[in-house]
Amino acid sequence: MTINVGLIGIGNIGTGVAEYLRDYGVSHGLRLKAVADADPGKLKNASLPGTFLTDDASKVTKDPQIQIVIELIGGENPARQIKLDAIDNGKAVVTANKFTISRYSRQIFQAARSRGVDVRFEASVGGGIPIIQSLQEGLAPNAITLITGIVNGTTNYILTRMSEGMEYETALKTAQEKGFAERDPYLDVSGQDSKHKLAILASVAWNSWIDPASVPCEGISQITPGDMDFAAEFGYAIKLLATARKRSSKVELRVSPALVSVSHPLAKIADEFNAIYLDGNFCGPQMFYGRGAGRLATTSAVMADVMHIARNLRRGVRDELPSLDEKYELATDSVSGGYFRLDLKHVAGSLAKVADILARHGISIRDSVQRNKFKREVNGDIVVPDIITVEPVSDSRVKKALAELEECDSVYGKPFYLRIED
Amino acid sequence: MTINVGLIGIGNIGTGVAEYLRDYGVSHGLRLKAVADADPGKLKNASLPGTFLTDDASKVTKDPQIQIVIELIGGENPARQIKLDAIDNGKAVVTANKFTISRYSRQIFQAARSRGVDVRFEASVGGGIPIIQSLQEGLAPNAITLITGIVNGTTNYILTRMSEGMEYETALKTAQEKGFAERDPYLDVSGQDSKHKLAILASVAWNSWIDPASVPCEGISQITPGDMDFAAEFGYAIKLLATARKRSSKVELRVSPALVSVSHPLAKIADEFNAIYLDGNFCGPQMFYGRGAGRLATTSAVMADVMHIARNLRRGVRDELPSLDEKYELATDSVSGGYFRLDLKHVAGSLAKVADILARHGISIRDSVQRNKFKREVNGDIVVPDIITVEPVSDSRVKKALAELEECDSVYGKPFYLRIED
Repeated sequence: MTINVGLIGIGNIGTGVAEYLRDYGVSHGLRLKAVADADPGKLKNASLPGTFLTDDASKVTKDPQIQIVIELIGGENPARQIKLDAIDNGKAVVTANKFTISRYSRQIFQAARSRGVDVRFEASVGGGIPIIQSLQEGLAPNAITLITGIVNGTTNYILTRMSEGMEYETALKTAQEKGFAERDPYLDVSGQDSKHKLAILASVAWNSWIDPASVPCEGISQITPGDMDFAAEFGYAIKLLATARKRSSKVELRVSPALVSVSHPLAKIADEFNAIYLDGNFCGPQMFYGRGAGRLATTSAVMADVMHIARNLRRGVRDELPSLDEKYELATDSVSGGYFRLDLKHVAGSLAKVADILARHGISIRDSVQRNKFKREVNGDIVVPDIITVEPVSDSRVKKALAELEECDSVYGKPFYLRIED
Repeated sequence: MTINVGLIGIGNIGTGVAEYLRDYGVSHGLRLKAVADADPGKLKNASLPGTFLTDDASKVTKDPQIQIVIELIGGENPARQIKLDAIDNGKAVVTANKFTISRYSRQIFQAARSRGVDVRFEASVGGGIPIIQSLQEGLAPNAITLITGIVNGTTNYILTRMSEGMEYETALKTAQEKGFAERDPYLDVSGQDSKHKLAILASVAWNSWIDPASVPCEGISQITPGDMDFAAEFGYAIKLLATARKRSSKVELRVSPALVSVSHPLAKIADEFNAIYLDGNFCGPQMFYGRGAGRLATTSAVMADVMHIARNLRRGVRDELPSLDEKYELATDSVSGGYFRLDLKHVAGSLAKVADILARHGISIRDSVQRNKFKREVNGDIVVPDIITVEPVSDSRVKKALAELEECDSVYGKPFYLRIED
């Protein structure tokens, strides 16, 4: 039984999926019946004999012969409505769209449940890495306690170049030239992209809807060569981590750059690669590594979902979508090692004042390194970056100390803080 | 609908699975109805209220109320017959038994196919790592070109200790003390365990029955501190790799220690951990990392299989088992960089003779390092280990060169050879 597939969005990923279906569809009993894209130029470039091409998505979502709709247009609108329309018309949906899945999973799953159709979204996190299915099936016997991942290839590529000595701006430019960063890199470098992916992973792991808006999020643009220099010397890599921890019903969420010990498997993930590290009460620590983006890797994940649904359709069954109704509380204060980088005015007593502030907040210094080689003049003052790592401390204490350090007349500008994940 | 499960074999892993079912079975609609073990002592220690305990496996395989039989006794007999009996009696089978699955997969799958029952074996490779399901589903759209893994925790633990300076014998003893090696370590250190796991991975990836007996297999017992010393200095780790490559219909298979560049993700896999690295034409390089053995991790994999089958039973479907009938040829000659370790007699001209032999076989030297610090006296001769790495060369040339080197009067004993995986 040949299953008819419709595709909406024929950009970079869509082209990969369309060509897979064109070249290998027959051997999997799949036929790409129709493709819609709002941009007639993209449709013109498509080389898809026998496939109906249209600029009207509803011609795909309403086609009674189509059983699976693949939505690959990205962004929020009209991607959300297109999925709901397809479901309404009794079609299974496959998507790579992290924004709509993270924000509207409950609505989309509920619609699919009442209509009796499948929804799959493997490609929304980690490109070709089968992490969603692993969480839903292979690791299902476990209570997952930790998910921490490098889920954005752009920022990992930039941080890898920075670890080799490049400044942030140059590394970003290189990433753009190589096609690893968009012309407007905001969604990647700000951590927004990682935030939505983390929300999806945590939602699947804990059967709770995790609102991406509830994830505190910091980007990488403030990382300096001085930070990289310290990290290399003291046995760390700096990585943009998307982290979710669960202790009983408390969930801690965060996207931020962090110092990762070089002995941790995540420290070695280089270039544009992604990796998701997790821990479960039976499986123990696990890591899944691979290409987190790009036409071919994403095509692999999308097609795995399509083939899974096709098998379900042939057997007359569908998967149970997670109810996402487990209750949880957001943890508001957590504890970790910390890294302060302060621009100290180059006058006697500066470090003493800083040490005093940390001491008054009960923060114990581990290492303190003044970096004369990064000394510079700012507004007539000589400032020297001073790096202080501290023993595990709660976020709330750090916050208070940072506020006081910012007021301190020995500290120039805003102090910079990173967590240390040992 | 509660599904009745029977367990055969209540050793270390069996106890983990039995306790999982006792503690969490109800919430998954599963009930451990019966446990069989030939050893009444093990049954006596089991704390499983409400579960029927017997020393007769056929009381489990013939119980008409049991729908899933978990076989965890290991070894070949009676494990193979027990699975066939369970299938004959219409029961689905879950096993962690790499020996019987690798050797008799065709027979077992064929029996299951005709009887209409599921067989799953996630725990047979990589402990808690969901690698079998990923190959069967998440990576199904890909033509897999390479599988290379560290699939034996015992040897990886030993090699990690050796990389820190321990001799092989001491490292093995430490592994035994820590419970990472059996009292008789033969199956692990000889590579036999890895061989069976590789055969399973390759069979699943290529839908061909790969006879484990066809996998050339070398163990780790010949690795010396001198090899480790060289590897560390020249940017390599020494790992026991289980490797399968496919180029068109040619399959290359091998279990052997190899030098792995430190920039390769597998080089960092430490201690008793496992990792499977693979490459596919769409997904690109991927790596799956986790605990490859142990009660809890293996329980995770076994229970994931049981839960998957239970869902199938509730929906009245079963999975399609691979036919394993794709034709392939075994590649007989392959090319890689190489590492020679020779005990040279400490007399003038020794190295010249060796270099001449390599040159006559068209083998190009990359690095040559004489290791005076490992100099020793053997039967009145002073011998110095000399290490020579060479540019990529075919196995057949290496074989001829090794035979000639062994005959060479400047070389003491048998020359040692490792492949280099860059």
